[in-house]
Amino acid sequence: MTTALLTDHYELTMVQAAMKAGTAQRRSLFDLFTRRLPEGRRYGVVAGLGRAIEAIDNFRFGDEEIAFLLTNDIIHDELAEYLANYRFTGDIWGYPEGEVYFPGSPVLSVEGTFAEACILETVLLSIYNHDSAIAAAASRMTAMDGGRSCVEMGARRTQERSAVAAARAAYVAGFTSTSNLEAGRTYGIPTIGTAAHSFTLLHDTEEDAFRAQIAALGENTTLLVDTYDVEAAIRLGVELTDGRLGAIRLASGDLAIMARQARDLLDDLGATSTKIMVTSDLDEWQIALLQGSPVDGYGVGTSLVTGSGHPTCGFVYKLVARAESEEPDAPWVPVGKKSKGKNTLGGRKFAMRRLGADGRAETEVIGLGTPPANDGNDRELLVPIYRGGELVYTATLDDARRRHQESLAELPLSARRISKGDPALETLILDAEGDETTNPYQAAPIVTNI
Amino acid sequence: MTTALLTDHYELTMVQAAMKAGTAQRRSLFDLFTRRLPEGRRYGVVAGLGRAIEAIDNFRFGDEEIAFLLTNDIIHDELAEYLANYRFTGDIWGYPEGEVYFPGSPVLSVEGTFAEACILETVLLSIYNHDSAIAAAASRMTAMDGGRSCVEMGARRTQERSAVAAARAAYVAGFTSTSNLEAGRTYGIPTIGTAAHSFTLLHDTEEDAFRAQIAALGENTTLLVDTYDVEAAIRLGVELTDGRLGAIRLASGDLAIMARQARDLLDDLGATSTKIMVTSDLDEWQIALLQGSPVDGYGVGTSLVTGSGHPTCGFVYKLVARAESEEPDAPWVPVGKKSKGKNTLGGRKFAMRRLGADGRAETEVIGLGTPPANDGNDRELLVPIYRGGELVYTATLDDARRRHQESLAELPLSARRISKGDPALETLILDAEGDETTNPYQAAPIVTNI
Repeated sequence: MTTALLTDHYELTMVQAAMKAGTAQRRSLFDLFTRRLPEGRRYGVVAGLGRAIEAIDNFRFGDEEIAFLLTNDIIHDELAEYLANYRFTGDIWGYPEGEVYFPGSPVLSVEGTFAEACILETVLLSIYNHDSAIAAAASRMTAMDGGRSCVEMGARRTQERSAVAAARAAYVAGFTSTSNLEAGRTYGIPTIGTAAHSFTLLHDTEEDAFRAQIAALGENTTLLVDTYDVEAAIRLGVELTDGRLGAIRLASGDLAIMARQARDLLDDLGATSTKIMVTSDLDEWQIALLQGSPVDGYGVGTSLVTGSGHPTCGFVYKLVARAESEEPDAPWVPVGKKSKGKNTLGGRKFAMRRLGADGRAETEVIGLGTPPANDGNDRELLVPIYRGGELVYTATLDDARRRHQESLAELPLSARRISKGDPALETLILDAEGDETTNPYQAAPIVTNI
Repeated sequence: MTTALLTDHYELTMVQAAMKAGTAQRRSLFDLFTRRLPEGRRYGVVAGLGRAIEAIDNFRFGDEEIAFLLTNDIIHDELAEYLANYRFTGDIWGYPEGEVYFPGSPVLSVEGTFAEACILETVLLSIYNHDSAIAAAASRMTAMDGGRSCVEMGARRTQERSAVAAARAAYVAGFTSTSNLEAGRTYGIPTIGTAAHSFTLLHDTEEDAFRAQIAALGENTTLLVDTYDVEAAIRLGVELTDGRLGAIRLASGDLAIMARQARDLLDDLGATSTKIMVTSDLDEWQIALLQGSPVDGYGVGTSLVTGSGHPTCGFVYKLVARAESEEPDAPWVPVGKKSKGKNTLGGRKFAMRRLGADGRAETEVIGLGTPPANDGNDRELLVPIYRGGELVYTATLDDARRRHQESLAELPLSARRISKGDPALETLILDAEGDETTNPYQAAPIVTNI
């Protein structure tokens, strides 16, 4: 399925104008980054790289796409021919998926001709802005789960294809499974499910419903116990399974009180291994509040798939350097616009996480020019993704999950605080001479800047 | 592209258990509704029906989907056979797309066997919760635009396929066009674009960039004028087009002041027909604030595609009635769970908007049983969508757009107030005897309730 039209109209008309002017082939370097984290967030989480790679590989203008663009007078013949043969031939590097990031981190850099790099802007931003927003929320939740399991259950609360991407992003950030079957099929994420109130209501009695569920799914199933009377339902579930019931789900009410009462009752009835899963508008604060409660799993929906108050990241994709002319070896010129509060750091960057003697991260170092000598305490952050149009990034979804865990473990403990605060690391910006310079990002507002 | 796996795991396991228990064929009626509007919102907007119809028509389990489900032990053979032949054969009715709704409005009702109606839950909720959230935000924006044009430009700020759905929902609610090419191709929505800062920065001078853009796209193009110096850029654009420049775009700074200065300058230079488009984190409040400014078009991104603070609607899909047995003519039993704050109104409903003598809407009347005699002041809200599995709904996207405009015009003027408030109409709930009863929804919290 082509991703080529998941693109803003102006990307193509800009390329058309540049072709006519003879500037479309100038080597160009675009950085994808955010000027600041959402208010109060202490770190961001890179997610979406795996999907971005798929999107780049499927960025193909077929006959239908070309016909649409020509018929609607969006492009002319010269551009049509270029697009029909479009393949990305440049270089891409960036932060690996799962890595944490800070204001100004060059999360993804795309170098190619202006034409080939420019037209990837929209789809790359769509993917990064969505997936990283979900991963950031997910990471705050798993940081609060006390080693219990967080299950992604938000499909119904977000657009149907976003739901699949959200399940993937949540998995990167430590969720253990999803209710979303397409996410299971597409990404191999374990899927799980319980039952809905409709299943109980379909049957003449709760007992009929429970018997039906146990008969079909086994004693290890999870029974939803709050359709009528929680206590009676728990007693019934334990009785029907001789105490071997897999789990119960609580989906309403004061979950801390109910989980405690349910645990006591289950234990009294001898069902000591029956687990308790809770759902019902959970977010990172609710999950944190339940740390002292006998809960075994959290099903998280709305709050996860809407980024817990921050459904998008504020990533932008900015031209930071371009060649002086169309010649392949023309010298680079760093560029940046001058609008107030929207300054861009021109030129190609390096990025490193500086670690203290204890191995804890201390600073995000981003600089132009030559990286400072690495005394062993700098962890390089940028990895190659495409080289000359060839994919060289091979990390899997499980690698991303691991990368996230390790990156988070390396941050100061304050990063995991749930309260609002400043970014966990300061970003140090080095100019081309290696001198510290003002961070043009930290103080600037998130802007749409289309 | 099949939508069958855009489904929560438990929908299939519930059907499996019901099949084994002999209850899967019980006639069942599910209502899709919300218990309350997002805080402070005065009305909701139905959007997504057209996409829901596509999703139902593409809800097909092919060999690959069945193989995935069997291999992962999610379903067994009997259900596999059922799913392989799955076609929705029941009835669906609801509010037409574009219609406004209130707490408790039965926006969509699905009647069929438990099996066939149950498994549509996830994808229907995904579509309605997303699309209606975007349309509600869009409607508040177009209500404030003073007859100017609102353009959807949010693709980069939301998941790439959500972006296409968002452009569609915004169009339903009065946006005039979109930057999203796939939305143009898929739904025929007019696409437009301007230029980005990267285009100016690609060129050696702003003049080179403007000349290139005008040469390729004509004098009627929209020049982005805030890369370096707004005044100089406007003078340049006017000069290069002999005053015939189509439009300028302002993308940063205090837009009210800048639009006024730009208009004065354009007029001074004789470019009286050059339009001014503004972008930069606009939302309904910003749009309202600019009503007194000489602005011709608003490009709206982040705030639109994230539902302006409410990215999801809180729609749920609840079993409200089911047959007593599997017999096709078995009597119906209204059902509803008893959890505190999550009561459901059992049984099949009618829905009407009661109009006053002046044609203004006064009350949303939702009832069980026979509708009260219509004295000409009740507008029926429910329309048939599927009958016996056959699609009977024929309204187009433009019909939805019209429906929205007309429904909004019919509401009390207070509905269009931008400030927080109560729903513009009260919902009157009639019981099976036609007597007024308590609205079980109005006071209840939005719940995830998976």
